[in-house]
Amino acid sequence: MNMTRSNIQPQSISGFPEWLPEEKIIEQKMIDIIRAAYEKFGFSPIETAAVEKVDILRAKGGNDKEIYCLSRLAGAEEGEDGKELALHFDLTVPLARYVAQNYSNLPFPFRRYQIQKVWRGERPQSGRFREFYQCDIDIIGDGELSLLSDAEIPSIIYSIFKQMDIGPFVININNRKIIQGYLNFLGIPDSDVANVLRTIDKIEKVGVDKVVSELVNSLGFSEEKVKPLIDLISLDTSSTPDVINELRQMKVNDKFSEGVDELAKVLKYMGDLGVPDDYYKINISIARGLDYYTGTVYETILKNHPGIGSVCSGGRFDNLAGYFTDKKLPGVGISIGLTRLFSKLIKAEVIKAGPSTSAPVLVTVMDPSCMNLYFKVATLLRDGGINTEVFLENKKIGIQLKFANRKGFALAVIAGSNEVESGNVQLKNLKTGEQYTVSVSELVPKVSEILSSLKKQGLWV
Amino acid sequence: MNMTRSNIQPQSISGFPEWLPEEKIIEQKMIDIIRAAYEKFGFSPIETAAVEKVDILRAKGGNDKEIYCLSRLAGAEEGEDGKELALHFDLTVPLARYVAQNYSNLPFPFRRYQIQKVWRGERPQSGRFREFYQCDIDIIGDGELSLLSDAEIPSIIYSIFKQMDIGPFVININNRKIIQGYLNFLGIPDSDVANVLRTIDKIEKVGVDKVVSELVNSLGFSEEKVKPLIDLISLDTSSTPDVINELRQMKVNDKFSEGVDELAKVLKYMGDLGVPDDYYKINISIARGLDYYTGTVYETILKNHPGIGSVCSGGRFDNLAGYFTDKKLPGVGISIGLTRLFSKLIKAEVIKAGPSTSAPVLVTVMDPSCMNLYFKVATLLRDGGINTEVFLENKKIGIQLKFANRKGFALAVIAGSNEVESGNVQLKNLKTGEQYTVSVSELVPKVSEILSSLKKQGLWV
Repeated sequence: MNMTRSNIQPQSISGFPEWLPEEKIIEQKMIDIIRAAYEKFGFSPIETAAVEKVDILRAKGGNDKEIYCLSRLAGAEEGEDGKELALHFDLTVPLARYVAQNYSNLPFPFRRYQIQKVWRGERPQSGRFREFYQCDIDIIGDGELSLLSDAEIPSIIYSIFKQMDIGPFVININNRKIIQGYLNFLGIPDSDVANVLRTIDKIEKVGVDKVVSELVNSLGFSEEKVKPLIDLISLDTSSTPDVINELRQMKVNDKFSEGVDELAKVLKYMGDLGVPDDYYKINISIARGLDYYTGTVYETILKNHPGIGSVCSGGRFDNLAGYFTDKKLPGVGISIGLTRLFSKLIKAEVIKAGPSTSAPVLVTVMDPSCMNLYFKVATLLRDGGINTEVFLENKKIGIQLKFANRKGFALAVIAGSNEVESGNVQLKNLKTGEQYTVSVSELVPKVSEILSSLKKQGLWV
Repeated sequence: MNMTRSNIQPQSISGFPEWLPEEKIIEQKMIDIIRAAYEKFGFSPIETAAVEKVDILRAKGGNDKEIYCLSRLAGAEEGEDGKELALHFDLTVPLARYVAQNYSNLPFPFRRYQIQKVWRGERPQSGRFREFYQCDIDIIGDGELSLLSDAEIPSIIYSIFKQMDIGPFVININNRKIIQGYLNFLGIPDSDVANVLRTIDKIEKVGVDKVVSELVNSLGFSEEKVKPLIDLISLDTSSTPDVINELRQMKVNDKFSEGVDELAKVLKYMGDLGVPDDYYKINISIARGLDYYTGTVYETILKNHPGIGSVCSGGRFDNLAGYFTDKKLPGVGISIGLTRLFSKLIKAEVIKAGPSTSAPVLVTVMDPSCMNLYFKVATLLRDGGINTEVFLENKKIGIQLKFANRKGFALAVIAGSNEVESGNVQLKNLKTGEQYTVSVSELVPKVSEILSSLKKQGLWV
């Protein structure tokens, strides 16, 4: 109302990614794979509001600088001071609030998946966004939760990344009790444990020397404590049974042994669940920086793209919602940072944008007076489960086929008044150039046949 | 960090709806139906950021009171004053910005669907939310757009609401040029036309008398102008061919005739596209309050629930993105306000919440020492395309079956060590109580068979 025409520059905002249709189709396909896998393992969907009360978001330690508050552009109501409502920055805090709030209406163990955008006012950089998708699952127990859940989670990770077909990957798995027990054994006080874990966690990124130097110089540890710690986290873990045996023989303390036992059990069940040996690895250095993990932890690395970092992380926590309820709610879960993963894979050309349409067939219009035929053919294809667009503009057939190729359709239906009379149409395979005369009644099976052959050749998605 | 334990009340915020899993599963199913229909007609997905620059949102007349601005809770960067970024309040303004911005990378006619949440700082009331889903499609032409697109849109509406199975519905269709031509003919100046259209638009809600009184008393029209106008919009439209003939004979002026011709063409093509007669109706009173519609307009009413109002509305506009580009981009589209529709249907019990799981099968655990069998059975079912949960807690079988009934599973697999040795399991139909002994190798076909029989009886979704 208060702007004149054509003087506003249309542009995206840094850190708020958007995609062209041919990219969005692929991102959507990845989301569909994740969702299907979550449902396959019996997780139910929930969706929480994008907006939470600021109190809720700060309860578990959100970073104020990264929290986006809401205020009305004009006419705030009484009591609104613009610091009450804010966008969620993850899906874990909202889950905790939701579970506490709906406790009596939820069946436990409660398995939920949640695929939503979250917002963080971080400085945007490559692969770090201010608005991005998280795809989370968690299994929440009421009072207790069996270790079997810890084993099921990696089998879901395996199922997802296998199906995504983005190259080999390995699920790094550890149990925080191992390293925590060892730190206790070394006499490192509980108050320092979190700092040490955060430092150790960086070992794959920054290397052993930097970690040693940080432990000695910044955290003030003696060399004689640091050496055995580094030895532990550098254990050769290429053979899972060997490393479990080695850890068992160490007999450090109860906490350590508990961690080793839990890890061994989880690994055994993962085998029962069909996760192949070469898709997981014990990695004693991973601890996940977040304070709330208390047992099993996971990180997932794409072997050909270790620089992307972990593409799916999570773990076990003792108590989900202590800030909101007195009920003890232990859980285990993971999160896939989809926007980051997708943007990195597109950049690395691991995935490439394909057609900008999810319809394989374009019905062209040679003779506008036969429009009712074209519409009938389209309806026939759609009823046969084949997504179909009709070219509705009055353009020459050459322009229509150019459009079809640009959008990436697999097939074009071409028919003039002659064909109409004979009950046939021309079906053009736009990927191979082949052209067939097909009777209208045979169109659906013929299109299906060509599409499955194109799929086999990698020429259709 | 700055809160102590257990003292924050977990609660939702008024106007920001959330659902239990058994409700969310149904909302998700409705979204899936809409998305599949949009794709069936060849629309490609896009997703714009939830956040736009405030300038962009105000360009087309957003209501400042309803726009939620973003600001950081702490540590705003230089240049950030908290009035620059805001949440989008619809998907049309973002579409206009996106199309103008990506013009050279988009194939035209550009058909996009967009299913996202939008935010409006309105006063919450029944069926009016501050955060809600919109499910939009638009066909955008480059310079021109054939009327055939106007006809295809109602065939998509038909396809969606037929499949949703929420009772009979009717698509009200009109062309704004008819009423605009008539107003010109009555000597009502163009500057008043928008106000008159807005008033007329309310006729189904408030009745003829109120509309007449508003036209006479508030807008200052003479009774002799109001009478023929009311006669026009009250035309008996029960027979489409009759009303078109009647309108044609009126020969009011060119604009009027253009509107009648367009409407007649759109109706003819709708027939070719297979929309049955009793699913649409000319309604000369509908004009859609929004200024930017210039031709065909649609509203969709559930016949058994007219009080819900229009569940799917839209129309033709001359120029999508005049504020952002000099290109002329005519279009036609619709929007489904899904959250409102869903909440009203749940309230009216037209749709009822079903199971709180999207998995039909629960594998129970009778003997924890046979865990590897249970996991294998679950993997077999999952690989066979059957979503399956394994009960992972160590509980008595009675508790497990109670859990299964509460969550609404269709089937439970039950097996002890005896069964394991024989290669059989018990399969219990939780909806009928029947129980079968099934060999593990026959499990997938047997489960599929029972599920399709339960679906036929309306006992599974």
